[in-house]
Amino acid sequence: MDKVESKFASLETDSAPGQEVRSRVAALSAFRGDLLPGPEVDFSHGDVDAFLPAPGALEAFLGGVRAGGKQAYTEYRGSAGIRTGLAARLADFTGAPVSADNGLILTPGSQGALFLAMASTVAAGDKVAVVQPDYFANRKLVRFLEGEIMPVRLAFLEAGGSAGLDLGDLEDAFRKGAKVFVFSNPNNPTGVVYSEGEIRAIADLAERYGATVIVDQLYSRLRYQGTTYTHLRAADIDPNRVLTIMGPSKTESLSGYRLGVAFGSPRIVERMERLQAIVSLRAAGYNQSVLATWLAEPNDWMAERIALHQAIRNDLLAKLKTVDGMAVRTPEAGSYLFPKLPPLSIDTADFIKALRFQASVVATPGSEFGPDSGSFVRLNFSQKHAEAIAAVDRMATLIKRYGN
Amino acid sequence: MDKVESKFASLETDSAPGQEVRSRVAALSAFRGDLLPGPEVDFSHGDVDAFLPAPGALEAFLGGVRAGGKQAYTEYRGSAGIRTGLAARLADFTGAPVSADNGLILTPGSQGALFLAMASTVAAGDKVAVVQPDYFANRKLVRFLEGEIMPVRLAFLEAGGSAGLDLGDLEDAFRKGAKVFVFSNPNNPTGVVYSEGEIRAIADLAERYGATVIVDQLYSRLRYQGTTYTHLRAADIDPNRVLTIMGPSKTESLSGYRLGVAFGSPRIVERMERLQAIVSLRAAGYNQSVLATWLAEPNDWMAERIALHQAIRNDLLAKLKTVDGMAVRTPEAGSYLFPKLPPLSIDTADFIKALRFQASVVATPGSEFGPDSGSFVRLNFSQKHAEAIAAVDRMATLIKRYGN
Repeated sequence: MDKVESKFASLETDSAPGQEVRSRVAALSAFRGDLLPGPEVDFSHGDVDAFLPAPGALEAFLGGVRAGGKQAYTEYRGSAGIRTGLAARLADFTGAPVSADNGLILTPGSQGALFLAMASTVAAGDKVAVVQPDYFANRKLVRFLEGEIMPVRLAFLEAGGSAGLDLGDLEDAFRKGAKVFVFSNPNNPTGVVYSEGEIRAIADLAERYGATVIVDQLYSRLRYQGTTYTHLRAADIDPNRVLTIMGPSKTESLSGYRLGVAFGSPRIVERMERLQAIVSLRAAGYNQSVLATWLAEPNDWMAERIALHQAIRNDLLAKLKTVDGMAVRTPEAGSYLFPKLPPLSIDTADFIKALRFQASVVATPGSEFGPDSGSFVRLNFSQKHAEAIAAVDRMATLIKRYGN
Repeated sequence: MDKVESKFASLETDSAPGQEVRSRVAALSAFRGDLLPGPEVDFSHGDVDAFLPAPGALEAFLGGVRAGGKQAYTEYRGSAGIRTGLAARLADFTGAPVSADNGLILTPGSQGALFLAMASTVAAGDKVAVVQPDYFANRKLVRFLEGEIMPVRLAFLEAGGSAGLDLGDLEDAFRKGAKVFVFSNPNNPTGVVYSEGEIRAIADLAERYGATVIVDQLYSRLRYQGTTYTHLRAADIDPNRVLTIMGPSKTESLSGYRLGVAFGSPRIVERMERLQAIVSLRAAGYNQSVLATWLAEPNDWMAERIALHQAIRNDLLAKLKTVDGMAVRTPEAGSYLFPKLPPLSIDTADFIKALRFQASVVATPGSEFGPDSGSFVRLNFSQKHAEAIAAVDRMATLIKRYGN
């Protein structure tokens, strides 16, 4: 196996959310019982047919097309006009200033922002503190960049009033030389939100050890009743060491436009633009126009979207809690549930296949999010309400069927 | 300077096409004479207001939006339905089979395809044969991936009946261990097309030395009268060692949608998809729908587009040839002219500034394309015809003004 080949072996995507279509589903000899009828529910990502794209998006896109050449060929970091309006709204949302000129870049999705940010701060051999569990790409990016993962545990099931970050692990990683810490808040896959105390502690440790923090706040707008959210960039921390990532793909259902943003440290944003120039040039020019509607939606639209998700969350949680031996924490934000399966007679990978083949339910295996999450599954509950409930019912039936 | 910082120093983009807006233009003490009035012409990229996006593009995009979730969340390599139709048309265009299932990936622009292809074949320390001059990102990508550039000269000004590739240089690079050769055909920035003999020789050498060839054919549809084009992938070469890159951003003026494709070697396409999963996930879902119209435009539309570009090319060439001491080769394809400036009293970087400040003409310095092209400038002549002629007139005036 040559050097490139071994590098790509670690980027295996067969279980990645959205890629299920490439693997054939067949009955396994381990399967028991009959098929459970019901409309397919794909919990690997949100259903943008259930929660439609935010209002005004398409009209804004058409405006971009009408603008012609100047919108097709923007600066690599994105249209200056769009950045100006957006910087003000992002500052307002996060509670700390954003420079439209030097502190903001538009990217092809928040995935694009995350890649550029990590590649702009991590070189081969560098140590990177990574939360476990956390968004699957975080670990893969460190591996692709030939960095070294310093795991930081998130005891989310045990914690109350906080996300459960192991601050000892984090300090240990910094003490051993990690210069970058990457985490999502709310956490993907668990939906937990870091407490003010945790965010302050992260800021303190980053300052003390001179580390850079990349915080993925993709789901930070979809917060449920009673949740307090603290923006790291508004904490007592040098703004040059924080980069925040957001985007309208999730809560706003604009994933089909592939838009993301990163803002904060001008030093990192400058590098990200240089790299974007050879990776993808820019976020699609016409699509950038859609960002003019972002963080500017009608208030009642956002309130309704949150309420509808909260209702689905509550109903699915109630169902899951009736399953013997299942452990699940109530997500405070975002649209993921991350239940721990009870002991089963088949392994999680085969259970995921049974779910798909026997119950028409697509779920993402917990192993995508960290080495200790093998008995968890992730469900994106941004779905048609009744169908999601029926799907979780079928899942409960299968758990019972394969119970140990 | 830490490791990451030094890596990014080599990715400097201040002179990159499209980034001119970020640098302030000010009068230099070296400037002589008055401003030359006329509408600004930005030769750094094509003018999509002069040559409008190909017919049907927007309608296809709207179809993608209407398709909803299934078009927003495609496989990372792109929608299977779109790949199926496109694979057949790409096979027809290039004269060799394309597998929709395993041999084709949709990317955010052809820049996205080039990045993924290079990152999927080049590891740190690997030698890569790179043509000089060639597309500026080729060299930057090798540097970013910490590979080693093995230069292969293109004697385009001297050659007749061929592009002028130095096959001795290429064999030398392979003999010294280069496992990858990357080149654009037609060549960007010169517009020359590789002869059948050159393509055959490249295929022979790649086979003999077991090398992979990445060929960027972005401009291969915009061919002028009398030009014979040979597709490397249809030559006598193992299809597993060739990856071809194309896209509708140039001839078809669809740059605002950011779409590209790579096709050929299943091994490389598989790696590219794994990498795309952590770099940008996928080409924007709705935008992918636009590719259903690509390579399926009305014949007369394409014929007219080629004829209009050929007419601009001829008129600009005639102007440039009247300038004392200027050397230029007639481009056989694409929309670039790459004239060599006569000796001037100011260096090329300052002349580029004078062009912009005094004559409202934006040109790209030849130094972006290779270390030996410092006295060249690149002009993308996909512009409004009369304005382009007037702009080259102003450029001729400045050349005379700053003549040595």
